[in-house]
Amino acid sequence: MGYVKGLRCKECGKNYEKLPVHVCEYCFGPLEVDYDYEGISKVISRKSIQDGPPSMWRYQPLLPIDGEPQVGRYTGFTPLIEAKNLAKALGLKKVYVKNDSVNHPTFSFKDRVVSVAVTKAKEFGFDTVSCASTGNLANSVSAHAAEAGLKSCIFIPVGLEQGKVLCTQVYGTQLISVRGSYDDVNRLCSEIAGSHQWAFVNINIRAYYGDGSKSYGYEIAEQLGWRTPDNVVVPVAGSSLITKIWKAFHEFKDLGLIDKVNTKVFAAQATGCSPVSTAIKNGWDTHKPVKPDTIAKSIAIGNPADGFYGIKTVRDSGGWGEDVTDEEVIEGMKLLGETEGVFTETAGGVTVAVTKKLVEQGRIKPDELTVVCVTGNGLKTLEALDNKFAEPAVIEPNIHSFEEVYSNGITV
Amino acid sequence: MGYVKGLRCKECGKNYEKLPVHVCEYCFGPLEVDYDYEGISKVISRKSIQDGPPSMWRYQPLLPIDGEPQVGRYTGFTPLIEAKNLAKALGLKKVYVKNDSVNHPTFSFKDRVVSVAVTKAKEFGFDTVSCASTGNLANSVSAHAAEAGLKSCIFIPVGLEQGKVLCTQVYGTQLISVRGSYDDVNRLCSEIAGSHQWAFVNINIRAYYGDGSKSYGYEIAEQLGWRTPDNVVVPVAGSSLITKIWKAFHEFKDLGLIDKVNTKVFAAQATGCSPVSTAIKNGWDTHKPVKPDTIAKSIAIGNPADGFYGIKTVRDSGGWGEDVTDEEVIEGMKLLGETEGVFTETAGGVTVAVTKKLVEQGRIKPDELTVVCVTGNGLKTLEALDNKFAEPAVIEPNIHSFEEVYSNGITV
Ligand SMILES: Cc1ncc(COP(=O)(O)O)c(C=O)c1O
Ligand SMILES: Cc1ncc(COP(=O)(O)O)c(C=O)c1O
Ligand SMILES: [Zn+2]
Ligand SMILES: [Zn+2]
Repeated sequence: MGYVKGLRCKECGKNYEKLPVHVCEYCFGPLEVDYDYEGISKVISRKSIQDGPPSMWRYQPLLPIDGEPQVGRYTGFTPLIEAKNLAKALGLKKVYVKNDSVNHPTFSFKDRVVSVAVTKAKEFGFDTVSCASTGNLANSVSAHAAEAGLKSCIFIPVGLEQGKVLCTQVYGTQLISVRGSYDDVNRLCSEIAGSHQWAFVNINIRAYYGDGSKSYGYEIAEQLGWRTPDNVVVPVAGSSLITKIWKAFHEFKDLGLIDKVNTKVFAAQATGCSPVSTAIKNGWDTHKPVKPDTIAKSIAIGNPADGFYGIKTVRDSGGWGEDVTDEEVIEGMKLLGETEGVFTETAGGVTVAVTKKLVEQGRIKPDELTVVCVTGNGLKTLEALDNKFAEPAVIEPNIHSFEEVYSNGITV
Repeated sequence: MGYVKGLRCKECGKNYEKLPVHVCEYCFGPLEVDYDYEGISKVISRKSIQDGPPSMWRYQPLLPIDGEPQVGRYTGFTPLIEAKNLAKALGLKKVYVKNDSVNHPTFSFKDRVVSVAVTKAKEFGFDTVSCASTGNLANSVSAHAAEAGLKSCIFIPVGLEQGKVLCTQVYGTQLISVRGSYDDVNRLCSEIAGSHQWAFVNINIRAYYGDGSKSYGYEIAEQLGWRTPDNVVVPVAGSSLITKIWKAFHEFKDLGLIDKVNTKVFAAQATGCSPVSTAIKNGWDTHKPVKPDTIAKSIAIGNPADGFYGIKTVRDSGGWGEDVTDEEVIEGMKLLGETEGVFTETAGGVTVAVTKKLVEQGRIKPDELTVVCVTGNGLKTLEALDNKFAEPAVIEPNIHSFEEVYSNGITV
């Protein structure tokens, strides 16, 4: 039956029942899941986890569902790649890439949160799921709604990449494009959530949804051999993922699955939308909303819902926040491709480029173990690479034509 | 040190040493890997496999490398999805989808063959890898060459999808576009292989390369609970994959890992390039080359290298071959998306649509267990879906604008 006792306000601590609610009635603080950790500690162990399925559901007692997962049974447990070439290029000894570009089914870490959210939607008896999305969430909600046999209605800002749009439509959803930024879309959805009885995965289901991301953190710790890295560099939009990785590490420690947490958490943003890294650099407690302007559209959230907690996570951990230009984003995508054969989207380019910058700044040290979070798939943001490579040499189908271009300097 | 004794001619049985050769000097038959099955049987068991890594390397004794895998360590062990919604839509009781759209690192089954081929290239001491490709192989060779620190030179026919092209270039290769069909490209590469000492993964390394695909078959059998399905529907281009799935099932039986092989193998092609299904329908021993004309570009091979063996596999198993129009391919992609939340490329659309046709023909029966092979990723063939969906409704970022389109019939 699961280990969720209810919800609790992150600010004032007031308890709530297991319902599709997300804001405290008293202090307007966000609600989070209140787990029965004592019960969990009786059933979870390194062995129970290792004997589990090769998916995020190996950590099921720590995920906020009551029954069995109803969708997304194959999500998670993506590779943690030992990235020797990238490490060398960055001048580091040990770098790992946590690669959710191959996450099942829609090729980003969002499948983790949505597997949980759509299962909750079914548990609560909703017949329609919905979300405001910068793209990856749209893909995942549409896919999981199809799998669940639920209706879906998905809101995105105009101007998203073709891959993000088609990878939403192919699952058969109602897609609505809003003239505005993600923040406008999100505000609109909060209003609609008041008048339509839908499961908005990142609004009324948000408390449950967010905890799906903890699996990304659990996997890093397990795959490193039951320890956390010295550094983890996380792409930040709404700031949910970054706080949940941190939460995951601490839950593992509190449950005795790992010894200690000695990890610096780094927030990676695009300069064109950097409310969190800007706040960190300036020593602010919370962010100031910005108007996004970057090719890293999936993390272009100007007014992050969990910005305050993201900033706090970075600060508590002794980490830092940095941001990079769109040009550096492209360079980051290329660097990861050329060194590790991993093709990530613009958000991953942000993470790689920020990692490089942090190394140059001396904030990430050569001897430390660093995990780079690659949360999305490069095929979804092809537009970013348009005209970024030399055109392929075009030849006739005969050996003379090949030898001509070959001797003329195609350099292999 | 591995369990490869050498190579052997599939036709005349002549033995060859472990070298980068692929054609018999005596009879021009294709060479295949000659394994020490007695040695393998001593080290492999269901338990040894289950205790192995969650990748294709859990079957390492059955893969033709001498040392440890040098690239692609995280490839394979992709989900075998129980596809209840698809089964219902097709009027079947039990359907599984073997989903290589999330294969690591380049999102198609080709990572299986290339992990092996590039490891062999390193073992043989090559400094450059190469291939003729319809797209997915190009992606995978480029990525694995980057990981291996080898140079690469990759040949594709002109006119491939943007996703296939960029997902080759991002890893930093020399890409050459040939004015002609895949078959022209392949012929050209065979010639170049004579004058350049490169590892052409699907030419001089082909005997080893092909056996990487066996892992797809092993995984199906293991994930079904150590048995093979009643039917397996396989997309066919060069006919390597289909023969290797069959080989994998029989190796498992011969090693006592499964009881029997009672599987019908079905070849799925696009009508615009259907040399194999045409041969099967006509009772021919081998195919007649055709000139491809289909949106399913990744399987558009008019003169399949292993066509003869593909046809034989289907016939020996009691299966059949079918082909579908480009329109049906799109319908197949949509059907899989809408029922299972899985986004496959045109080749997967072929497989799904052919499965549907085979059910309608009564060749696949309602009570049987059928595995549908999804070997590639829908994000790589976005062009196929251009204009195939209604444009999203565009609204202003306010609730009135939403309620207007909502009451006017966006049907959620
Ligand atoms: C690829 C990718 N990475 C990272 C993020 C950031 O996640 P969060 O909103 O939890 O900060 C997103 C959010 O959409 C994303 O799409
Ligand atoms: C996605 C996909 N599926 C299936 C195939 C068929 O493989 P084979 O050439 O082994 O028949 C290919 C070949 O390129 C492919 O790209
Ligand atoms: Zn409160
Ligand atoms: Zn021979």
